[in-house]
Amino acid sequence: MTDLILRASALSAEAFAPFGEVLETEGREFRWINARTCKRYDDLADIDVEENGGRALLSVFEASPRQLPLRIQVLERHPLSSQAFFPLECRPFLVVVAEDAPRNVGRIRAFVSSGRQGVNFRRGTWHHALIALDATSRFLVVDRGGPEENCEERPVADRVIMVDLARDAGAPRA
Amino acid sequence: MTDLILRASALSAEAFAPFGEVLETEGREFRWINARTCKRYDDLADIDVEENGGRALLSVFEASPRQLPLRIQVLERHPLSSQAFFPLECRPFLVVVAEDAPRNVGRIRAFVSSGRQGVNFRRGTWHHALIALDATSRFLVVDRGGPEENCEERPVADRVIMVDLARDAGAPRA
Repeated sequence: MTDLILRASALSAEAFAPFGEVLETEGREFRWINARTCKRYDDLADIDVEENGGRALLSVFEASPRQLPLRIQVLERHPLSSQAFFPLECRPFLVVVAEDAPRNVGRIRAFVSSGRQGVNFRRGTWHHALIALDATSRFLVVDRGGPEENCEERPVADRVIMVDLARDAGAPRA
Repeated sequence: MTDLILRASALSAEAFAPFGEVLETEGREFRWINARTCKRYDDLADIDVEENGGRALLSVFEASPRQLPLRIQVLERHPLSSQAFFPLECRPFLVVVAEDAPRNVGRIRAFVSSGRQGVNFRRGTWHHALIALDATSRFLVVDRGGPEENCEERPVADRVIMVDLARDAGAPRA
């Protein structure tokens, strides 16, 4: 029995602001570089990785696609750093985040990236592990290198929460 | 009159090692994360941005395509940091680098990325500005934020150097 079906809404900077930054070029300011052959959209995220001598780590994640609707059981957060994801094959993916709460995770939100948008989770933001759709997908990731443990996990209370695309986001998935 | 036509060879970690790292997953080690739904190819580049209180800057560059053959006139380098580029639309692009030399740039090399490969220029590596091919292309860039000037430019001696794809890399370009 499902307590809640969460429909993912389109990712936007405004809606995502409580959780971090949307990494995108559409509608953003840029400056011309390289003799006007290149637009530079500068400094799109707060890369917050330096706590306790941490350093920026650049990695690639290759994620298998998930079937929707997907049950959200556990969220994670990184107490020492931000974590940025950018899709490398222009494929939409789901972003599930939650407000903080005293003993558990708070209200959960789901967003769908256009495939031309990345996200940067602010330090300490509760979020679900990467949710690729349709096909195995690579993401460039910028997070923190350092010896300390930098991942906490929490179960999503006792509710059954399923996440799916909005009804108008395309054909139903198997 | 052209003194030298430089043919770009396939980008590989081994050939590119004097200039920095190739960011790629093919043939690399990974570890499973997220309950074996995701492969993590960890720490692919030396993100060297902390000199004089610098910080990691995450930006998107949107580069217009260049016509080949392209004359190489000026190279640049960043004395305070590395600079990483990853293609966001899986399109091949050219990477032109040079060895250091006392008064000018040294021997020039040209590589072509498969479109699934990024590069990280080691601090101080002479390189050409981004060379997109075929269509306007976006790249995720990780370099350094900080108040100091971090770009030097040098002309490529008096020689006329043209860069092009290798003869076996596809049809000739207009």
